[in-house]
Amino acid sequence: MGRWEPDARGRLEQAALELFEERGYARTTVEDIAARAGLTERTFFRYFTDKREVLFSGSAALEALIVETIGAAPASMAPLTAVARAFEALAPWFESRRGYARKRRAVIAAHAELGERELIKLSTLAAAIAAILRKRGLDEPTAALVAGMGIAIFRNAFERWADDTRAQSLAVHVGAAVAALQTATAGMAPRPSSPRRSMTARRTRPKVRR
Amino acid sequence: MGRWEPDARGRLEQAALELFEERGYARTTVEDIAARAGLTERTFFRYFTDKREVLFSGSAALEALIVETIGAAPASMAPLTAVARAFEALAPWFESRRGYARKRRAVIAAHAELGERELIKLSTLAAAIAAILRKRGLDEPTAALVAGMGIAIFRNAFERWADDTRAQSLAVHVGAAVAALQTATAGMAPRPSSPRRSMTARRTRPKVRR
Repeated sequence: MGRWEPDARGRLEQAALELFEERGYARTTVEDIAARAGLTERTFFRYFTDKREVLFSGSAALEALIVETIGAAPASMAPLTAVARAFEALAPWFESRRGYARKRRAVIAAHAELGERELIKLSTLAAAIAAILRKRGLDEPTAALVAGMGIAIFRNAFERWADDTRAQSLAVHVGAAVAALQTATAGMAPRPSSPRRSMTARRTRPKVRR
Repeated sequence: MGRWEPDARGRLEQAALELFEERGYARTTVEDIAARAGLTERTFFRYFTDKREVLFSGSAALEALIVETIGAAPASMAPLTAVARAFEALAPWFESRRGYARKRRAVIAAHAELGERELIKLSTLAAAIAAILRKRGLDEPTAALVAGMGIAIFRNAFERWADDTRAQSLAVHVGAAVAALQTATAGMAPRPSSPRRSMTARRTRPKVRR
């Protein structure tokens, strides 16, 4: 029922974030959020299943876009490049949301249960990325590894982007994160032999100071 | 008080895992676990704060070992190499636990709340790794990125190790995970210019199929 409200979802998100900042997550009710947004509780539950979900409503759409972009990449493209390009493709969505993203990050950092939900969302995203990479022909352990590297790139890019006083696009920061990952990998000790052949040598390697 | 019980911790872990497998996590009580281990509930609570913690009791000790190993690595060692070596140093601890680790993985995969606890533990480990890398002089975004790459390596190595019918050491599988990460990175499209200079070029790059 209820009449259509212009940008009800955005208004509810904004109201929830303000209230979580002002009085904390635990002391904010769905009723409070709806009232602040000038909407009803009924409208709230049309968009979100619970109070916590307000801060994560975009994640399904972003995940779908990421998976679609990876799936559309040329077969010849290196898997990790395809993943990085998919994150770059999110830039327009993020563009207008830097202020919201900063506040959201602070609220999540301040509330353990929101942090846990964030971890679950990222884990779900990693699983979706691994699934589309397998569909592109990557074997299972490598697909999961590349997905995990992708999540590390995305988190790094997101932090750089949120903190960027020069307001550069997320795509720029994905590029910076990829460059940092390449630098970190290039700086590693060479591992010329395969794991099987070097088994004995490697066993002796770890040295723990006592 | 209660008398000292030989390997009470290990017996409780084993009993809990058996019961979670047999009747599910939700239908297993602390009383059941203690009874199966031939111990009292009082003894259980001397080792674990709750039923869920039984499967994660090793994580603090492993985290301490990882952080210590990274801290003891030569200053000249590349950060990601130091992290990989620290995981290799866990091999002796894992050596006798492959059967337990496989069962534990199945139980965790079957229970969402255990999976969430696992994610939190890995996130805590990533934060601890990032902290010791910062102490070694790495800047904040890079420390977090390398820690994230380290977690991706560890998870990948753990999966390979748990599934390894040839029973090779975890250290071997850390080497395989690092090699896979290097391959994935080497296969990426080159990014010759810095993020700032290539800003305009990169903006035009993402292509989403409609």
